[in-house]
Amino acid sequence: MSQGNEGWATAPGGITAPQGFKAAGVAAQVRKKGCRDVALICSETPAVAAGLFTRNLFKAAPVLVSQEHLADGRAQAVVVNSGIANACTGAQGMADARRMADLTGELLGITPGLVVVASTGVIGGPMPMDKIEAGIRDAVAALSRQGGGAAAEAIMTTDTTPKECAVKFSLGGKDVVIGGMAKGSGMIHPNLATMLSFLTTDAAIERAALDAALRYAADRSYNAVTIDGDTSTNDTVVILANGLAGNEPVTLESPDYAIFLDALLYVCVELAKMIARDGEGATKYMEVRVRGASSEEGARQIARTIACSNLVKSALFGEDANWGRIVTAAGYAGVPFDPDKVSIWLGDLLVAAEGTGLVFDEERAKEILEGREVAVTVDLNQGDADGVAWGCDLSYDYVRINGSYRT
Amino acid sequence: MSQGNEGWATAPGGITAPQGFKAAGVAAQVRKKGCRDVALICSETPAVAAGLFTRNLFKAAPVLVSQEHLADGRAQAVVVNSGIANACTGAQGMADARRMADLTGELLGITPGLVVVASTGVIGGPMPMDKIEAGIRDAVAALSRQGGGAAAEAIMTTDTTPKECAVKFSLGGKDVVIGGMAKGSGMIHPNLATMLSFLTTDAAIERAALDAALRYAADRSYNAVTIDGDTSTNDTVVILANGLAGNEPVTLESPDYAIFLDALLYVCVELAKMIARDGEGATKYMEVRVRGASSEEGARQIARTIACSNLVKSALFGEDANWGRIVTAAGYAGVPFDPDKVSIWLGDLLVAAEGTGLVFDEERAKEILEGREVAVTVDLNQGDADGVAWGCDLSYDYVRINGSYRT
Repeated sequence: MSQGNEGWATAPGGITAPQGFKAAGVAAQVRKKGCRDVALICSETPAVAAGLFTRNLFKAAPVLVSQEHLADGRAQAVVVNSGIANACTGAQGMADARRMADLTGELLGITPGLVVVASTGVIGGPMPMDKIEAGIRDAVAALSRQGGGAAAEAIMTTDTTPKECAVKFSLGGKDVVIGGMAKGSGMIHPNLATMLSFLTTDAAIERAALDAALRYAADRSYNAVTIDGDTSTNDTVVILANGLAGNEPVTLESPDYAIFLDALLYVCVELAKMIARDGEGATKYMEVRVRGASSEEGARQIARTIACSNLVKSALFGEDANWGRIVTAAGYAGVPFDPDKVSIWLGDLLVAAEGTGLVFDEERAKEILEGREVAVTVDLNQGDADGVAWGCDLSYDYVRINGSYRT
Repeated sequence: MSQGNEGWATAPGGITAPQGFKAAGVAAQVRKKGCRDVALICSETPAVAAGLFTRNLFKAAPVLVSQEHLADGRAQAVVVNSGIANACTGAQGMADARRMADLTGELLGITPGLVVVASTGVIGGPMPMDKIEAGIRDAVAALSRQGGGAAAEAIMTTDTTPKECAVKFSLGGKDVVIGGMAKGSGMIHPNLATMLSFLTTDAAIERAALDAALRYAADRSYNAVTIDGDTSTNDTVVILANGLAGNEPVTLESPDYAIFLDALLYVCVELAKMIARDGEGATKYMEVRVRGASSEEGARQIARTIACSNLVKSALFGEDANWGRIVTAAGYAGVPFDPDKVSIWLGDLLVAAEGTGLVFDEERAKEILEGREVAVTVDLNQGDADGVAWGCDLSYDYVRINGSYRT
């Protein structure tokens, strides 16, 4: 199976790269003075839409409203604020999330049911609706084909860079673009914070195909930096497909499905890697590849467990070739395998084979770990399934950032 | 159900407090120059014994050897080294672990099958057997009724204090003592490091009762700082009961079983709390109580998930009343409950009710969080089962310690 990272022609920009999409990102003073904190995406025409949401028992109000609005598989706009999560906010929070959809719909001249809502930030505080409403008005006024970058900025919280990606390809002779933006889980332990990603495409595609493609791509991208079931109150991934490329609509059965799927996977994987690289306080990026597994899902689970281990992350920060922590994490990932067959590499350096440590070149290990990007490979030597996960190190800055997030 | 923390008469010392137990802790230069790093416990007579071991797929050689030796439910001595884990060491590691048992048995004049072996430290390196053998000889020579404290020192790795506890009580008119020592998982995320605990008692107790009591107590103590299934390569809890108190042997059916169980739970909970207090880099200790749950196991799982959350721990370090992170962790603990019924307290301050944030006294919250010990209470309001877990904050020092553990 392709890891979705080769052979694609990237296009400039992100969510406004496909035809018929405008966006805006404005500063409504919800987050920090002068930071963009309200984002809007709008398609010229109603789009086929699919979404994936947090599995946390505590679902933020915008998640509940968006699930409702996407139940018919259609959407035309997405409105997002950063700075406050509108989670654990009770009936008032639900009213506020609905108000965001209503106002956006009213200003755009579309039914509120076509508006997806998302929020990210501090959990539990009330929404400053006066600021958010003013922000939505400003965002509608600012909508443009060039607004993708501003929107990508407006969804950031502790992210240090906006995250955008777009890819251009051909479906039945028609040029098609998929664009996307994401906000980092902005963290080292990505299962605990909010990940938002919004994707747009001018491809024509049937709802079932769009839904299946989004699930497939998310499992191999966002879910490889975020452990399933361990999600925040607000996690949201939504895709809008407006069909303006004029291709024959993609169905689950058409040969074009595989092409669309691979292109979507490419965009999602690129955004997921950007999230890992921009982990809170991260000084290093880690790609964990597990191969020789009995199942692809098992391989991914082991890779995620390694990439999420505080001890592996701390050793990476300290540039310490403590491969025993990699072994330990693999061993408690909950996936059966024979420990006596396992080999481990740091970069291209084999450090353990047949489950046992080797005498290796510590100087070479140090060189590898001094890099900004470190590859960890685990070969289980018992099947032919592979999996990848992405993460980063655990640094002093993670603690600093998260010791005073609210204040 | 008792949390095992009330009404017990503690006795001085630890593993040598019960009759008929001697111990020693010596410096064999395995860990750091001059630090005690080989521990030995010995009962005058063969004892009924039970053990619990890591569920990690990678089991260290001493774990495999000890499981073998405890298969008959009997043991008389325990030999432990710190500094190196003897994990992922292949056939040589197995030979080394067996050699530790053989030599200990030979010097004590008992069969090697009565010797339990444990190691803790860096994974993957070879055992310095010359040093360890010399250490075992020294330890045998140093065995004494006063040696419990030295043994508790010798099993430490990044622990800052030795951990000992003993309790005295009566079974059928006979004085009985249970003693114990532990080494901290020595960490913030306790599911990733080695926890060792050794318990001794002069109670007479049948094997099935001892085994059941150990499992019960471990679930409510060590497993409340260590998530089941997420264990290191070396985790070991072993209890030896030599019967020298002369009580009528405790069986699962006898009324004395409940008394023994509560006393054992007391010792295990005290040791577990010491582990939490001494987490690597910890500046604060956290007790998480979950009440009103549908099941005790569910309550403990939610409590553990909260106590293990990097974001909760970072907020505790930063003294930030970010209760949203507590809610979030509860919501992904994998235990079903109605989020709209949940109340949360920091200390005695109610910060959320019916799943919704309250306006609370931030000054008072700050005072509570400035303490060295912080209680977090979550009431699910839907059943009558309770659970507790213990943890600590995530500090800069955690990262420092774990960035350079090997070096």
